[in-house]
Amino acid sequence: MLKAVQILGWSSGLTIISQRLTKTRNSSSSSTISLKLSTFSSSPRRILSFIPTRMSSSQSGSDPLPKSQTFVSVQSSGDVRKIKFCQWCGGPTKHEIPDGEEKLRAICTHCGKIAYQNPKMVVGCLIVHEEKVLLCKRNIQPSHGLWTLPAGYLEVGESAAEGAMRETWEEAGATVEVISPFAQLDIPLIGQTYVIFLARLKNLDFAPGPESLECRLFGLDDIPFDSLAFSSIYVTLNLYLEDLKKGKVKFHYGTINKRPGSSPSDIRAFTLDYHLQP
Amino acid sequence: MLKAVQILGWSSGLTIISQRLTKTRNSSSSSTISLKLSTFSSSPRRILSFIPTRMSSSQSGSDPLPKSQTFVSVQSSGDVRKIKFCQWCGGPTKHEIPDGEEKLRAICTHCGKIAYQNPKMVVGCLIVHEEKVLLCKRNIQPSHGLWTLPAGYLEVGESAAEGAMRETWEEAGATVEVISPFAQLDIPLIGQTYVIFLARLKNLDFAPGPESLECRLFGLDDIPFDSLAFSSIYVTLNLYLEDLKKGKVKFHYGTINKRPGSSPSDIRAFTLDYHLQP
Repeated sequence: MLKAVQILGWSSGLTIISQRLTKTRNSSSSSTISLKLSTFSSSPRRILSFIPTRMSSSQSGSDPLPKSQTFVSVQSSGDVRKIKFCQWCGGPTKHEIPDGEEKLRAICTHCGKIAYQNPKMVVGCLIVHEEKVLLCKRNIQPSHGLWTLPAGYLEVGESAAEGAMRETWEEAGATVEVISPFAQLDIPLIGQTYVIFLARLKNLDFAPGPESLECRLFGLDDIPFDSLAFSSIYVTLNLYLEDLKKGKVKFHYGTINKRPGSSPSDIRAFTLDYHLQP
Repeated sequence: MLKAVQILGWSSGLTIISQRLTKTRNSSSSSTISLKLSTFSSSPRRILSFIPTRMSSSQSGSDPLPKSQTFVSVQSSGDVRKIKFCQWCGGPTKHEIPDGEEKLRAICTHCGKIAYQNPKMVVGCLIVHEEKVLLCKRNIQPSHGLWTLPAGYLEVGESAAEGAMRETWEEAGATVEVISPFAQLDIPLIGQTYVIFLARLKNLDFAPGPESLECRLFGLDDIPFDSLAFSSIYVTLNLYLEDLKKGKVKFHYGTINKRPGSSPSDIRAFTLDYHLQP
């Protein structure tokens, strides 16, 4: 039985960043910083018809956990207070803002090392075959039984494209060829960044891996938008359909800002900000 | 005085990925997986004139470490055997490949939790002003005294675009507006991914922060290619110049595969693979 725990901590990063960007600096500039970006807000279209209700940060939008029969999987992304010991020397940690920094860190009281936590990259493939897309029905929590693109955490030692192909093989048993980058979607609240590639099947053989119940090619009009697993997948598929309508598939950068406190199952409870294109 | 250690471990990931991609699966497919991507190799141009000598993995291509006066900064990216204790319960770890996985992990012998390690994102800005680009001369190791784009590790709680603006403010005292995504460059050997945005100055005030000795706008013909800090910066600037020659700036995805064993100072000792564009 899969025994898995995912730590998806609330982050105070946004507040702290704002503070640090508005403080004065010993420079020739006397101006303050504005966080307002040159945001090309989308024209009225499906992708912007999200329902801005509140949603919980817990697990929603998170990705398949590595499977394990005998161990506890933990993907920590931000809850620094849960780091109670130094992973290098075993000493107890204290939680302080180090000199010259602005964020709370876990600092070893014995050796002084800081345990930095950084966002994780989730890499996956948007596989298109004869105007159909390949989706996998999840066999693991969170979002068991809901549809997703084959995707998972990038590992050290592989490129994002390699990782996306590996995850596609593991979850869909599909041999694919990566064609081009399609989207980078940051989810600051849970410390994740989705990197999605357009890909094509090298042959028609595919079958669900252990983390999938089913894999299926969906016609573009039949995509199960009401049964998708994550906001990131909802955005990706909508952006792709919109690009097709416009006659040109482009690269998309965007930030998915989730609404704290709303239901994890409400994958439409967010805004897509900083939507930028080359 | 800055007391910093950076762990940049060798990864056995590539080998393991190859093994796992070629093994048979309980699926309808009897084919094996090929790692060969649809690589659009660049036409003969400056970007491909890299010298393919061997280089060391130690610190080359790594990023400014967070500054600290009193603590030891550690940015761990892959050397799992250095994780000797569980950061959650303090128990000693063992190093094994968990059931259902393929990579060596640090597993707590007390609570069973696995300490996953994932690549880190380095976010930065390619700031263009009147056909000049803004570079910073580094005041920290590695690559002290060499030129770089303002860039640093993405923090949990911020988007890549926000992180790139924050780093630009911290290192160059510059207020910028992010215009568009320009490049994602993976460096699998050291577990880093560079995400670079095109940006413009909101005013002409800029000045070096504590991690920079100097910040300067360089004309496109005067970029100090022989004094750049990292391969990722070398590639980014070359891609931008090539795009300008072609008359259109595009988004680039690519993998910088460094040559193990060569000098860290040889930033041209790599190949750019999987160069894909939308």
